[in-house]
Amino acid sequence: MDNQFKFLLQEWREQIDRRLFQVLDGHHPAILYDPIQYVLEGGGKRIRPILLALSCKAVDGVLEKCWDAAVAVELLHDFTLVHDDIMDRDDTRRGRATVHKKWNSDIALLAGDGLVALAFQSLLRTQSSKIHEIATVFTEGIIELCEGQAFDLEFETNGDVNLKDYLDMIGRKTARLLNVSAKLGGLIGNGNEAEVQALGNFGYNLGCGFQIQDDLLDITSDEATMGKTYGSDVKRKKQTYLLVHALSEADSSIKEQLRFLLTKQEINRTQINEVKVLFEKAGSIDAAKFAINKYILSAKSNLDELHSTQGKELLLSFLKYISNRNA
Amino acid sequence: MDNQFKFLLQEWREQIDRRLFQVLDGHHPAILYDPIQYVLEGGGKRIRPILLALSCKAVDGVLEKCWDAAVAVELLHDFTLVHDDIMDRDDTRRGRATVHKKWNSDIALLAGDGLVALAFQSLLRTQSSKIHEIATVFTEGIIELCEGQAFDLEFETNGDVNLKDYLDMIGRKTARLLNVSAKLGGLIGNGNEAEVQALGNFGYNLGCGFQIQDDLLDITSDEATMGKTYGSDVKRKKQTYLLVHALSEADSSIKEQLRFLLTKQEINRTQINEVKVLFEKAGSIDAAKFAINKYILSAKSNLDELHSTQGKELLLSFLKYISNRNA
Repeated sequence: MDNQFKFLLQEWREQIDRRLFQVLDGHHPAILYDPIQYVLEGGGKRIRPILLALSCKAVDGVLEKCWDAAVAVELLHDFTLVHDDIMDRDDTRRGRATVHKKWNSDIALLAGDGLVALAFQSLLRTQSSKIHEIATVFTEGIIELCEGQAFDLEFETNGDVNLKDYLDMIGRKTARLLNVSAKLGGLIGNGNEAEVQALGNFGYNLGCGFQIQDDLLDITSDEATMGKTYGSDVKRKKQTYLLVHALSEADSSIKEQLRFLLTKQEINRTQINEVKVLFEKAGSIDAAKFAINKYILSAKSNLDELHSTQGKELLLSFLKYISNRNA
Repeated sequence: MDNQFKFLLQEWREQIDRRLFQVLDGHHPAILYDPIQYVLEGGGKRIRPILLALSCKAVDGVLEKCWDAAVAVELLHDFTLVHDDIMDRDDTRRGRATVHKKWNSDIALLAGDGLVALAFQSLLRTQSSKIHEIATVFTEGIIELCEGQAFDLEFETNGDVNLKDYLDMIGRKTARLLNVSAKLGGLIGNGNEAEVQALGNFGYNLGCGFQIQDDLLDITSDEATMGKTYGSDVKRKKQTYLLVHALSEADSSIKEQLRFLLTKQEINRTQINEVKVLFEKAGSIDAAKFAINKYILSAKSNLDELHSTQGKELLLSFLKYISNRNA
């Protein structure tokens, strides 16, 4: 990543963080706002607000106008994390205890509700003649986020998930919010319809690639870098691109071995390694890499619609930054 | 209640119900939308959407424009019920199993999230030049709802609650949504600033009276009418107007007896009756009746600001309908 872009990311991250915490100013009671503050302090890469700001810049928009919406997509993302962690019984997030673990699930439930409300509050501070469309895009995004999470819950009890189902699920659960972020940036920046659409598609493709990469990193990245446990998806028997691919595409002996490993109550480190070997044999790791690359190429081609050369370059740098991550 | 008003309420309720269920058309997966449909089928008096429609009419607004927002406030109310029931461990609501009881708390959590998103979706279908203000009023309302629920949670572990704390809590948790409903009706109906403010105050006062009445009915209404268990608030040691009043205003012997009863793990029917007698002795039942009346009188006087004679009359009929309820 070139230094100029790195510097820009750093500057924007600080801008976003400063504005994120302002959302909490003067609010009480602590029982609601302390857990929310804790979530905001947890860090994260702020990918969604940065994508929003980049998209605003990519249509030569006024950057200053986009920060409230940028904060909104980050708050919305945090809302999904807090509620999903309750449903997934996840004890750690970004290397720290999750809200329901540090407090309890009632507090986490309420903190999530507060986050979604604060997200709308921040969004509605945006000064734009397109505020109705902006709020509608945001809202439709939340509905799909809920649907994505619902499909994910359904997958837990339904062993028969194919790649189409999986891609539909991550489309809603992960890619949609990146799609929304990019579209909002385009709308606030006063991009034309084709540009807003192209930015949305860019966000969507980036999101799909990002999620499959996340699935892949679960067994190819080391713990210290990742901030979550090696093979935690495997441990939780989560329907990832790799597992869905292997269980639908591998030959029957591999499928059988995989299914056998998944019957275990507890999956230990040796067994995670065995699963990894089975994924390799099934070609699932290569397939995941291929799929990630396909989405990245699609995202690139979405940028053809943009007029601003600088905007295009910034989004290409962002794409590179995201796809080169190892955590 | 005169027959004409009764007929109007019935007609509007049908209108609201029809539109409520349309929100679900074509949506899936069932794991998300079945529980939501179940909640909508649970009935309820549709007080909030009716107040919104009445407020629209009270400023001579076009009724047809208000239904999407009316549906939105009902969906928002349902969201709070589903999530609050999880936190309060309530097993029944409107005489049926609560969502987390019929399914589980993950499903209920997600259904609540879906409801709040659907509420915004419906609200944003409203055609109004004031949509930015409409969405902002709605959003600020949700934030206060969360804060109200947070104070309520805090009260559970904090025995030292005074009437001011209690009134602040119900102001946020109950009255605010009635305030929002009335304001939205006024805004959509193109009322002037003073009218919108007056309608909002009317909703707020009505809401406070309504909640204290609810507290009172817990031990003065019979089960069949109420649809919830006699003395369920007492059983759950909930901070109601009556309990807060008695524990702060009664003489020390009554306080002592009350506190002793509240130390019991399980409070049986005989003990609920004892609590009721203590409330009577402490003057808490009379104080509650006095407070309800005070709020109703305030609500009435808020209507002085309205220009439409018919609008005023409709809202007065509504006030009468609400304050005469015995369930």
